[in-house]
Amino acid sequence: MEIVERLMAGDERALARAISLVEERAPQARDILQEIFPRTGRARVVGVTGFPGGGKSSLVDRLTACYRSEGKTVGVVAVDPSSAFSGGAILGDRIRMQRHSADPGVYIRSMATRGALGGLSKAASDAMDILDASGRDVIMVETVGVGQDEVDVVRVTDCVLVVLVPGMGDDIQAIKAGILEIADIFVINKSDREGTDRLQAELETMLAMVPSEARGSLQPEILRTVAIRDEGTAELAEAIARRIARDPAAAARRRREQSASRFLDLLRDRLLDRARDACLPDGEFDRIVGEISDRRIDPYTAVEQVLNKIRFGGSS
Amino acid sequence: MEIVERLMAGDERALARAISLVEERAPQARDILQEIFPRTGRARVVGVTGFPGGGKSSLVDRLTACYRSEGKTVGVVAVDPSSAFSGGAILGDRIRMQRHSADPGVYIRSMATRGALGGLSKAASDAMDILDASGRDVIMVETVGVGQDEVDVVRVTDCVLVVLVPGMGDDIQAIKAGILEIADIFVINKSDREGTDRLQAELETMLAMVPSEARGSLQPEILRTVAIRDEGTAELAEAIARRIARDPAAAARRRREQSASRFLDLLRDRLLDRARDACLPDGEFDRIVGEISDRRIDPYTAVEQVLNKIRFGGSS
Repeated sequence: MEIVERLMAGDERALARAISLVEERAPQARDILQEIFPRTGRARVVGVTGFPGGGKSSLVDRLTACYRSEGKTVGVVAVDPSSAFSGGAILGDRIRMQRHSADPGVYIRSMATRGALGGLSKAASDAMDILDASGRDVIMVETVGVGQDEVDVVRVTDCVLVVLVPGMGDDIQAIKAGILEIADIFVINKSDREGTDRLQAELETMLAMVPSEARGSLQPEILRTVAIRDEGTAELAEAIARRIARDPAAAARRRREQSASRFLDLLRDRLLDRARDACLPDGEFDRIVGEISDRRIDPYTAVEQVLNKIRFGGSS
Repeated sequence: MEIVERLMAGDERALARAISLVEERAPQARDILQEIFPRTGRARVVGVTGFPGGGKSSLVDRLTACYRSEGKTVGVVAVDPSSAFSGGAILGDRIRMQRHSADPGVYIRSMATRGALGGLSKAASDAMDILDASGRDVIMVETVGVGQDEVDVVRVTDCVLVVLVPGMGDDIQAIKAGILEIADIFVINKSDREGTDRLQAELETMLAMVPSEARGSLQPEILRTVAIRDEGTAELAEAIARRIARDPAAAARRRREQSASRFLDLLRDRLLDRARDACLPDGEFDRIVGEISDRRIDPYTAVEQVLNKIRFGGSS
């Protein structure tokens, strides 16, 4: 496909267009993804998550500058839950990382949720693949919040940064919710603030409670930064690189997990699409939903009725 | 089934057991849900969401007391994202709402995420159905965070409370992320704190931006509470009741949406289960994942190969 050739040749407009097609779930998206897939797997992918207001964007901005100074090209995917009525991302690309806007070595893209089940992490993974195929050396994916969606997005990256700030109070509890296990590096940003030592101590206590078998081979690290003053960010970039280099087995395991979840997500979606097209024509879906609503049929029986129209396991 | 008869007769142990079976995705769960389904749809269901630390639990506690004083029985489902290594909920039932612990008219249950795709909202919906069938008059479902999962959990309730606290700063931005559209009542809790007027003004500005067609027939309300001192909570309970009574069309629409998403979620899960069982025996899944990992096959082609083994749309 022409668009694939162009994006692989470094054409930024083709890159933007390809990601848009993926985000819009356009019919061509599949062909693009299929064609670029063999060219993926080269980029280092860093996930950045944490509560809103933690300074993730500033951190990504500083890391971008670090990578650029090493001559590496950078792609950033900022995953913003969208508002259904605005349809857009909260943080537009235009206000993000303005100082890199003139640098062709940096490509920044915001992506919105669009509400679809599995939609966010699938679209984000696809965008990362496209950036990877386009030859970006480092890809950072940054999330706005810390929900399950965000966990799904970052957990398959090569190195996961969980950004915290001192003085979060009760929120330290919520950190445990799924992201403790996926963190490679905890970044205490705004670490010139009061409460940094306490937060570090709490983190260390929490980490000590994690049985080693529930983890990768490397213990998570805790680093301190003040991104807005560029303090600690070069050390963070080094820690990320060191970590990825030191644990190739973990990287391979993650790629495998990513492959498995990508395959299953895709299979789940396509199965539903095919079943809806073939077995739930026209008003049939609405009819079934109406009957379930009125308690005339239970959803389990309704689903079995659909499954009965499908023959699994015959060869084509 | 005996367990269904017992839980419908008000046996709390049968109730607890049934919810556990659902949470564990035990084989019997399906039969239970199928059997109780015709007996559901009677309870009023209230969703309570908002950032951690907003005092949602205190609010649910006070609302429970209100409903009990009216002679209504109450069921509470507290949806806690779980930590993969602890396997349990952050907030255990035991520390929740201790003052209702001796009251058989109140049943409280925490549920954990368990990591599965769609798992949280499915398990929570099922638990609500069981509480509904057990004859609880009011069911409250409370979430710990405000991610997409939580939105999915509360959006199908009869009335959605979004709990905020003054002084959230940047976080007001994150509120827009999907939950603005689902809120029926914004509760400004801890409204004795500074910043209450400002938060209310910001909310009103945000609400004014929502086109009316993107909403139900009723404009969301904003109420103030200080749950810990029981201020404003009786008014909140009244507002909830009034709202549900005034908009039966919205209630019907939500039940329909709930039915549709329940049906599709179930269909999606069952399709994947059947496809895996029938078309991906033994090491086949691992083999495909390995090939995808090594970039020897792209996931799209791999999925099509599985789909080719399935015949959709023939009658059984």
